[in-house]
Amino acid sequence: MKTRSKVYQLENELKWETVGEGVRRQIMAYDGQLMLVKVEFKKGGIGYMHEHYHSQATYVASGVFELTINGEKQVLKAGEGYYVEPDAIHGCVCLEDGVLIDCFSPVRADFLTAK
Amino acid sequence: MKTRSKVYQLENELKWETVGEGVRRQIMAYDGQLMLVKVEFKKGGIGYMHEHYHSQATYVASGVFELTINGEKQVLKAGEGYYVEPDAIHGCVCLEDGVLIDCFSPVRADFLTAK
Repeated sequence: MKTRSKVYQLENELKWETVGEGVRRQIMAYDGQLMLVKVEFKKGGIGYMHEHYHSQATYVASGVFELTINGEKQVLKAGEGYYVEPDAIHGCVCLEDGVLIDCFSPVRADFLTAK
Repeated sequence: MKTRSKVYQLENELKWETVGEGVRRQIMAYDGQLMLVKVEFKKGGIGYMHEHYHSQATYVASGVFELTINGEKQVLKAGEGYYVEPDAIHGCVCLEDGVLIDCFSPVRADFLTAK
């Protein structure tokens, strides 16, 4: 397990990991303080409700998603985003194929040990 | 100055700030630990060489950019990304209109006080 990524994350070096039906991800830049993750969803793909101690900031790079954060629902489209405070229960359903850019602080060490 | 963003960042509530010629940004999700910023560049727009104590992870959402980080140059296209360690001198030139998603840890408090 490396404690930080390379400086550049290039298309031909990035690996996809399947994390659910219609959901796969690429680990992008990270160090101990933060981690950026690209998550691609097919329509109907689900990010099941979960929680973690990390702060999370997410950008909707493409597609349409229905989010639920602490019981509050919102439909988001490309260009929009959301914030998940530590321990907030959150999840999403993909309404149109798309990509979420998740940023966590501190690093999701569980994502690295799973590699 | 608020210490954290709203849960949802919606298109009709986001404000653009011009930060240079052909460069503007929107502050997206943040708290004390992290901040996500959308930066839109027109071709020829420049992110001048600079440094900061924050860790930075960036995703190229669209366009083509030439990066320089600690003297190492790389051309990046949509879907790729980069990591900037604290105090690393870095900058970019936009080669084709595009958007960078910058994530910082901790928060860029200087971006908030400038609002």
